[in-house]
Amino acid sequence: MKKLAIGIDLGGTNLKGIVLGSDGERRHLTRIPTQAEKGGQQVLKNLLSLIGVLIEKSGDKDSVIGVGIGTPGFIDSDGTILGGAENLPGWRGTQVFEPIMEQHGLRATGGNDVTVAALAELKFGAGKGVNNLVCFALGTGVGGGIVINGKVYKGTHGMAGEVGHISVETDGLQCSCGQKGCVEMYASATGIVRLARYFAAGEDSPLAQIAKTDPDAVTSKLVYGHVAKNDSLALKVHHKATQMLGKAVGITINTLSPDRVVLGGGVMMAGDVILEAVKKYAARHCWPEIFEQCTIVPAQLSEDAGVLGAASMAFDEFQ
Amino acid sequence: MKKLAIGIDLGGTNLKGIVLGSDGERRHLTRIPTQAEKGGQQVLKNLLSLIGVLIEKSGDKDSVIGVGIGTPGFIDSDGTILGGAENLPGWRGTQVFEPIMEQHGLRATGGNDVTVAALAELKFGAGKGVNNLVCFALGTGVGGGIVINGKVYKGTHGMAGEVGHISVETDGLQCSCGQKGCVEMYASATGIVRLARYFAAGEDSPLAQIAKTDPDAVTSKLVYGHVAKNDSLALKVHHKATQMLGKAVGITINTLSPDRVVLGGGVMMAGDVILEAVKKYAARHCWPEIFEQCTIVPAQLSEDAGVLGAASMAFDEFQ
Repeated sequence: MKKLAIGIDLGGTNLKGIVLGSDGERRHLTRIPTQAEKGGQQVLKNLLSLIGVLIEKSGDKDSVIGVGIGTPGFIDSDGTILGGAENLPGWRGTQVFEPIMEQHGLRATGGNDVTVAALAELKFGAGKGVNNLVCFALGTGVGGGIVINGKVYKGTHGMAGEVGHISVETDGLQCSCGQKGCVEMYASATGIVRLARYFAAGEDSPLAQIAKTDPDAVTSKLVYGHVAKNDSLALKVHHKATQMLGKAVGITINTLSPDRVVLGGGVMMAGDVILEAVKKYAARHCWPEIFEQCTIVPAQLSEDAGVLGAASMAFDEFQ
Repeated sequence: MKKLAIGIDLGGTNLKGIVLGSDGERRHLTRIPTQAEKGGQQVLKNLLSLIGVLIEKSGDKDSVIGVGIGTPGFIDSDGTILGGAENLPGWRGTQVFEPIMEQHGLRATGGNDVTVAALAELKFGAGKGVNNLVCFALGTGVGGGIVINGKVYKGTHGMAGEVGHISVETDGLQCSCGQKGCVEMYASATGIVRLARYFAAGEDSPLAQIAKTDPDAVTSKLVYGHVAKNDSLALKVHHKATQMLGKAVGITINTLSPDRVVLGGGVMMAGDVILEAVKKYAARHCWPEIFEQCTIVPAQLSEDAGVLGAASMAFDEFQ
C-alpha cells in the first residue's frame, strides 16, 4: 500500500504543507499565514492546525507515516528549537514534536529549512542520482544544507551547515554573528546591496547614480540588472560577491568532496553570470582532483523545495 | 565466533599492520619498510607480503573478514590511488584492492591515513561515545579526517577531509596547492618553522638568535620549547599558528557541527598550550550555539591510530 508523509515548510510569512506519496506523488499543497508576530505558541498552534488539515485532505490517516518540518534556525533531534531563527520571535525553546504526537498521533522529525531543501534537490531536483551534496541558499542571508550518503546531515543537535558564516576575508566586514568577513556579508541579497552602496562612492555609473541619490532603491535584482548592462559598479559588486562565495564554496568542496554543490535562493534568479563566476573562483580554492569530481549547478526546485524535502526526510527516518 | 580484520597503515617509511578482533583485541602488530623510493609496484608488493604475514600469524584465515588500508593521499572506492601522496613516488594510479583479492582472497577497503585515524579515535580514543567527529593532524602538513554517524566519511571518491587547505588568510602565504593562506602553511610543523624564520628578523630573543644564526636548527619542537620559556619570537609564532588553526577549526565546526574536534599529529606533543589557544580562537569563528555543542580535545592514540582505524573500517564495511 502506498505510504504518505506530511511535509511542512515554516517561513516567516507562510506555513506551507504538502502530502507526499512514497511514489513521489504530490498532493494537497496548502498555505496558511505563519503569524510570526503573534509569537512562538501561536506559530505552533497554526502548525498543528495545518497538519490536521493535511491529514483530513489525505483521506487516509493510516497511511501517513509521519511529519517532516523544515524551520529557520536549529531544531534539536528531540524537536526543541535551539535558536538561529531571528524572524520568528519566541520560536526558540518551543517543543514541536511532542504536541504533534499528542494531537495527531504522528511521529515528527525536523531540520533547518535549507537542509531539507538540499534533500529535496537530491531527491527531485539538481542533485538527482548523487550521494553527497551541499546547498548554498543565497537569500536575505546565506544558508547551507548538507546531504551525506543520500541522507540529510544535521549534526547531533541539528546545527550543521552554517556555511554562510565561513569567514572568507581577513579583517572583513563585521557580521552580526560576531565574526568578521562571513560570506553572508558579501553574497546574500543584503550583502550585495551593502557592497553596491559601499563601492558607489568611487564610481560614476548609472547604478552608482541610483545608489548615491536613492540608496533604498538598490536591490540585488537591480544590481544584477546592471551587471547585464556592463555597469562598472555592478560588475565590481558582482566580482567581489562571487569571489567571496567562490572561496566559501571551494572550502566546502575541499572539506566534504561532495558530488554536487547546488546554488539556490532569490539571488540566483540572476543565473549563469553568478554560476560561472563562482565556478571560476571556487576552483582556485580547491585541490584540482577534488574540484574535478564536483559539479556546481543552480537549484532546480524553487518554492516547493522546503515541503518536498521535509516530507522526504520523514520517509527517510520513519519508513 | 570471533571475527578478525587486518588493518594496514601505509607510511612513507614503514608499512604497519595489525590483526584486530571484533572484540577489540589487538594482535600481531608488525612493521616492515615501505621502500617508497623503489616505486609504487614495490610498495604494493610489500603491502601484499605484509598481509600474507598477518594472515599466517592470525592462524585462522577463515575468520578474517577483510583488509582495511590507510594511505597518504586519496584512494577511490575501487581501490585506485588518485593522488595527493607526494611522499610515495609512483603510488598514484596503483590499483590496490584487486591484487589483494587475487593473492589473498580477501575484500579490501581504504581511506586517507588521517581519515582512518579519526575513526580509530572515535572507536578507541578521544572520540569514544560520540557520533560525529573531525580530526586535524598537525604533522609535516595538516591532514583531516571526518567521521559522520559513526562511520568514516570519505566523499564519493575518497577525497573528503582536506581541511589543511582551508584558506584562512586573505593574500596569505603561497601554498604548493596553488592557493594562498592555507592553514597548513601556518600550523603544520613546517609552517611553524617557516613562521619562526620569517618573524625572526624583527626579534631579538634566544629563539630569534638561533633562527638567524642556524635556521636549520629550528624545529616546531624547538619553537614550543621556547614558548614554555616565554620567548617573544616563540610566542609570536605560537599566536599566529594557533590563530590560523583556530579559524580553520571554527569553520569546520560551523559547517559540520561535530560533537568533537580531535587535534593530533607530532606538533600536538606541545599539548595544552596549543589546545587552549585553538579553543579560544575557534570560538571566535563559530556560532556560539554550535561551538557549545562541540569539545576540542587532543588525540589519545598515537602511533597505532592508523592500523586500528584501518581494521575498524574493514569491520564497518564487511561485517
